[in-house]
Amino acid sequence: MDITDLLQTLKFNSQGLIPVITQDAFDHTVLMMAWMNKEAITQTLVTGEVHYWSRSRQELWHKGATSGHIQKLHQFFYDCDADTILVKVEQVGNIACHTGARSCFFQEVPLN
Amino acid sequence: MDITDLLQTLKFNSQGLIPVITQDAFDHTVLMMAWMNKEAITQTLVTGEVHYWSRSRQELWHKGATSGHIQKLHQFFYDCDADTILVKVEQVGNIACHTGARSCFFQEVPLN
Repeated sequence: MDITDLLQTLKFNSQGLIPVITQDAFDHTVLMMAWMNKEAITQTLVTGEVHYWSRSRQELWHKGATSGHIQKLHQFFYDCDADTILVKVEQVGNIACHTGARSCFFQEVPLN
Repeated sequence: MDITDLLQTLKFNSQGLIPVITQDAFDHTVLMMAWMNKEAITQTLVTGEVHYWSRSRQELWHKGATSGHIQKLHQFFYDCDADTILVKVEQVGNIACHTGARSCFFQEVPLN
């Protein structure tokens, strides 16, 4: 499947975005959830480094370009409804979260 | 943290929804992505079985209530921005996807 076909297959929301789950390719930790637009998907596939669309800054976000914590793309999946992406990555520096945590999901709700 | 505090901490979108990543608690497969509203979160935590908000049917969705493929809650996390949930579950029947697949992410884009 070339990128043009993929972009036609995927379903974007009313802002032209699709949610992306990012998982460590080696130990399978879920690292973060973010959003891509068509440009971010294209840049991710062309460069092999994950790009998102920053909703807060409203700009293309080459993850790790500033921090060095880039995400090298290992596998790219989309779901049964073609409205969610899953990328498996090598997380350089082993830190995905802007807080310095490995994963953004470090806050756990205790169960009764 | 009680449920009232949790619901005040979490950030919902303009439709009152928050995205949820569902991961197998045992082998760490990402099974699906769906959405919860406050009622779905409450029902998930109170019953120990995962509930979502069905955007297509616009109703509370007790996952597996029809198919038997319920998801037993093992762990409940939220991310650094409090705008995404990660649940780790025991997937009864080992099938999460409505297509009969184990995971909804069975379509892979080959990389060059």
